[in-house]
Amino acid sequence: MTGPRWSSEPLDATHDPHIASWVETADGHPDFPLQNLPFGVFVPPKRAGHRQPLPRGGIRIGDRVLDLGALARSGLLMGDAKAGAQAAAGGTLNAFFALGRGARNAVRQRVHTLLTEGAGDRPLVQRLLYDVRDITMELPVAVGDYTDFYAGVHHALRVGELFRPDRPLLPNYPWVPIAYHGRASSVRVSGESVRRPRGQFPATPGGEPRFAPTGKLDFELELGIWVGPGNELGDRIPIGDAGSSVAGFCLLNDWSARDIQAWEYQPLGPFLGKSFATTVSAWVVTPEALAPYRTPAPSRRADDPPPLPYLTDADDQTGGGLDIELEVLLSTAQMRATRVAPQRLSLSSTRYLYWTVAQMIAHHTSGGCNLRPGDLLGTGTLSGPAATARGSLLEMSSNGTRPVEVVTGQTRGFLEDGDEIVLRARAGRPGLATIGFGECRATVVPAEGG
Amino acid sequence: MTGPRWSSEPLDATHDPHIASWVETADGHPDFPLQNLPFGVFVPPKRAGHRQPLPRGGIRIGDRVLDLGALARSGLLMGDAKAGAQAAAGGTLNAFFALGRGARNAVRQRVHTLLTEGAGDRPLVQRLLYDVRDITMELPVAVGDYTDFYAGVHHALRVGELFRPDRPLLPNYPWVPIAYHGRASSVRVSGESVRRPRGQFPATPGGEPRFAPTGKLDFELELGIWVGPGNELGDRIPIGDAGSSVAGFCLLNDWSARDIQAWEYQPLGPFLGKSFATTVSAWVVTPEALAPYRTPAPSRRADDPPPLPYLTDADDQTGGGLDIELEVLLSTAQMRATRVAPQRLSLSSTRYLYWTVAQMIAHHTSGGCNLRPGDLLGTGTLSGPAATARGSLLEMSSNGTRPVEVVTGQTRGFLEDGDEIVLRARAGRPGLATIGFGECRATVVPAEGG
Repeated sequence: MTGPRWSSEPLDATHDPHIASWVETADGHPDFPLQNLPFGVFVPPKRAGHRQPLPRGGIRIGDRVLDLGALARSGLLMGDAKAGAQAAAGGTLNAFFALGRGARNAVRQRVHTLLTEGAGDRPLVQRLLYDVRDITMELPVAVGDYTDFYAGVHHALRVGELFRPDRPLLPNYPWVPIAYHGRASSVRVSGESVRRPRGQFPATPGGEPRFAPTGKLDFELELGIWVGPGNELGDRIPIGDAGSSVAGFCLLNDWSARDIQAWEYQPLGPFLGKSFATTVSAWVVTPEALAPYRTPAPSRRADDPPPLPYLTDADDQTGGGLDIELEVLLSTAQMRATRVAPQRLSLSSTRYLYWTVAQMIAHHTSGGCNLRPGDLLGTGTLSGPAATARGSLLEMSSNGTRPVEVVTGQTRGFLEDGDEIVLRARAGRPGLATIGFGECRATVVPAEGG
Repeated sequence: MTGPRWSSEPLDATHDPHIASWVETADGHPDFPLQNLPFGVFVPPKRAGHRQPLPRGGIRIGDRVLDLGALARSGLLMGDAKAGAQAAAGGTLNAFFALGRGARNAVRQRVHTLLTEGAGDRPLVQRLLYDVRDITMELPVAVGDYTDFYAGVHHALRVGELFRPDRPLLPNYPWVPIAYHGRASSVRVSGESVRRPRGQFPATPGGEPRFAPTGKLDFELELGIWVGPGNELGDRIPIGDAGSSVAGFCLLNDWSARDIQAWEYQPLGPFLGKSFATTVSAWVVTPEALAPYRTPAPSRRADDPPPLPYLTDADDQTGGGLDIELEVLLSTAQMRATRVAPQRLSLSSTRYLYWTVAQMIAHHTSGGCNLRPGDLLGTGTLSGPAATARGSLLEMSSNGTRPVEVVTGQTRGFLEDGDEIVLRARAGRPGLATIGFGECRATVVPAEGG
């Protein structure tokens, strides 16, 4: 244990909504007020006559980014905070994630103090800030392995209804946090476009397959979890310690080609139907920032068995859930051409998770599989029970058979070239600040070779 | 294209069985004569009063290993050969793999000359050799992503017969090179033990699951393929160019817990039943060394459709197959205690592959998924049609119901603690040298916590 449990971490001054920042755009910022302070990797602007700057770690505040390496060199940090900022100074946050909560929280606490209104060192810190309009964001880590869970029970139910009306939820669902290994190489940061994949699938059900651009390109709304300190191969992380292995959270769009997936997935699961792209938001929202928005573990359905002991922890039951609101927005090329604002396709929540993050980590490592700093976990698609809370077009359009109207005259069964999908997420609670994740954004470009 | 196609590469002096080496243990070595020259990463012995040496790239010859970094510094290399040896001098071969065939073959050709009987520089080169008994081997690369195919058609048929007697081979099998994403973090080099995983599975069919050490621990005999130059996300590697993306081959044991796998795998495929360990052999056998042992692409069953155009290439049909003999040996703790030699469980071959390596790579990248240098592909279990050629205990023992006799009085349905599995492979042809892969060896140790 490297600190309080994720599920019962106390609140402190960094969560106080009445403490203001001297950074002008911070207070009231919809995503990044002083109470958030997420980490990320950015590239500063190139200055004339200078070399291209290297990617480096930063902390977001309002519309500014604080350079952590420069902060470490400034003399304003000591001890764990300095060690943490130094570990975050390079082109990936893997080494910083490996340090765990101690260093992360030390940086958070110190940066909170330095950015608080009236802080004495403001002139020094101000010189270490960049305007977000001048920088570019990169993937925050070198992703080791990417695992995608299936913990959105309403998604599992809805997909099951579409393909197995007789038994929508398989017997193992209430017992096993179902997951599969995803593709790490194709994880990309928000803003990079997604090329429509070609693949093999039958033109008509039961027909012979051919190789063609997917006709069923879809998004999936997920929460991503970045792994911090992991475990050695052969060891496991007990559920009570699992929170210590979380470095932070992001938004995750698990792009899917439903026709390719349906044809290939028996008997070994999704492969090329998923591995052509996964988009994550750039900012790593910390467990500390999300501490005020914990909830009890999701309630199970009346007939469901209790989780097995290795997935059961009293603190996790009390505070292992998360209350984060997530939305999906679509902007088509035609909408942009006619200046129609992006339209919301879905409004969902992490409250619809069937398993907690600690349960996912305890399960993942239960057989000794090792997690490493910078590994990525996806929750699975976060659909809610309502028709307005579905996390994929597969669910919304009943596998393309009932296209949804985006704006008058424009419908979508699945995504078309030029469509832009934006995921957003916010956490708020009466009497506390609202914090957000920024955007997870990508535009679909046509298949290779037209 | 960075050289001749894998499927039609010409033979040269490095394949000549009549050229001898001055390294005493090389000629007639069952795995590593002068005609092989595989690459790997090793740690030299620590000398008293010196620091622990760092891992580094080497080439195996007989019972010796040539230090490639030291060779690059020796003045004996120039051009591509020097650049290649320098890229292979560090603790992983990823950078060397990225250089592709040109640098790899330049190193191979030059080292062959330097090690040939009568070479003038023998005294200089001799000082760069280590005795394999003094070194330890490491994983040759930092594995980016690990993909496991299902291209052993007799394995797929036999497993299908066990679990779906009515339709042993699914309709997509003759069309799609089926694969799933595996776990990269738990890939380990030959010699490291494998801890029996715990996991969730029902004690009896249809019963409630509990969490316990697997009772169905199994091996899988596979060929591994190391990826060299890869592709950018969104691009693809046409089948005609796919051979250029292969850096080399290894043996691969895809350890499996059949009870965990059976309970968890619907609907998203294997997860914890596979991800607790994957063992690979230490030496990277190059496409150049294997050039003499190419065969026509595997013949398809009479009723099977021809592959789709993106999986079809005339050269690949002519020479894209491989003729490598593979065997599985078992040594139980009791056998070792009573000095009984390891017993052969299986003798199989890469001729039983349904898809060629080029077809696997063309398919993997067909939707734009990017491969990176150091990625690992497994072929899937290489069973043959005969009962003596089955690549897993699942098949041999009919899922544990008919234990096989290993030696008199000792049977195995699945693996027990203390069992050691050794995979070996050889390629030979009349009039040519026989080359091998060395061993892929690991011993099962008891589950964590006893």
